[in-house]
Amino acid sequence: MKLYETKTAPNPRRVRMFLAEKGLLDQVECVEIDLQKGENLTPEFAAKNPMKKVPVLELDDGTCIAETMAICRYFESAYPATPKLLGDNAVEEAVIEQWSRWLDYYFFVPCGMGFQHTSGFFKDRMTPVKEWGELCVADTQKFMRFLDQHLADKQFICCDKLTAADLTAFAVAAFARVIKLRVDDSLPNLHAWYQRMQARESAQV
Amino acid sequence: MKLYETKTAPNPRRVRMFLAEKGLLDQVECVEIDLQKGENLTPEFAAKNPMKKVPVLELDDGTCIAETMAICRYFESAYPATPKLLGDNAVEEAVIEQWSRWLDYYFFVPCGMGFQHTSGFFKDRMTPVKEWGELCVADTQKFMRFLDQHLADKQFICCDKLTAADLTAFAVAAFARVIKLRVDDSLPNLHAWYQRMQARESAQV
Repeated sequence: MKLYETKTAPNPRRVRMFLAEKGLLDQVECVEIDLQKGENLTPEFAAKNPMKKVPVLELDDGTCIAETMAICRYFESAYPATPKLLGDNAVEEAVIEQWSRWLDYYFFVPCGMGFQHTSGFFKDRMTPVKEWGELCVADTQKFMRFLDQHLADKQFICCDKLTAADLTAFAVAAFARVIKLRVDDSLPNLHAWYQRMQARESAQV
Repeated sequence: MKLYETKTAPNPRRVRMFLAEKGLLDQVECVEIDLQKGENLTPEFAAKNPMKKVPVLELDDGTCIAETMAICRYFESAYPATPKLLGDNAVEEAVIEQWSRWLDYYFFVPCGMGFQHTSGFFKDRMTPVKEWGELCVADTQKFMRFLDQHLADKQFICCDKLTAADLTAFAVAAFARVIKLRVDDSLPNLHAWYQRMQARESAQV
């Protein structure tokens, strides 16, 4: 299997951490795609993912799966003997899905849009709207405060154990430096959780 | 179980259609929440879902699950004998997740933001940015053209059968009227698919 990815981007990092936590990193051959050079915009890449984004998993039969959580779900289901990161029963699966969606919609999307719309990094391919970008940065910060409160009495985001939700939250919290937000001791619970995540072997991959 | 929802909103509709396709509608008691009156903004409701959105599923033990796909996943997993709408094997599960994400991120989010930012419908609780709203409306339209091409040789969005992806696409396509986009014969493949979806019993619930 091939994993088309970009080493410095947050979504591929979520997939690598997911694979590392499951002990499956050696199952994929990583292929680096340079986003700034537009290697994701070629017809060859668009044939793998019409949305022209990384990561993309290409199975040995040529089937391509785009989107981080879709790739993670493939591994969760295809390798049932590995540690479960998407839940062990109906309630856990639902709670992890709820948190994954919250983290995506209220944390990752505003962080990414805040970056794109305030920096103009991708202005060759989208129209930055500064006012919108600034609202997104403020929303990202607000969600970080919510997470800090949430983690006051918890070691993990949900289900009292490491799940895909922690990997998403960690990758986005690290990525938030692009909009000059850093997890520090002004958010003590989030900071302690972040340091615990940072200490995991999977954070180094 | 109680399902807190708003009859006219697209996300609760996705859950009702999902339950109807599984024959599980009679398992939940529906509780109507009036969004314009702000019934979702009360402390009681925020205790069920801190994001203050519908739908929310409340299990008999008081556990609350927010977010459409999280609620759907609960029923998919808790009632394994019902028709599978989230996939029968690892590849199907991944492909449906990929499509769910695309439909959410490139269709539903721009449609919803297009509505909120051009209409100012929720201006008591968010800051509308008209320029951003107009870009979102254009993106929604672009995705509808992509879907139309995609459906040229398909009866369903993916996996050659009805899945949760069709229910999401249908609920958003219907909701797009709020930004004055209608599925008509200018998009013939999408229109034919829409009419097939509209004819299903689950579209009436």
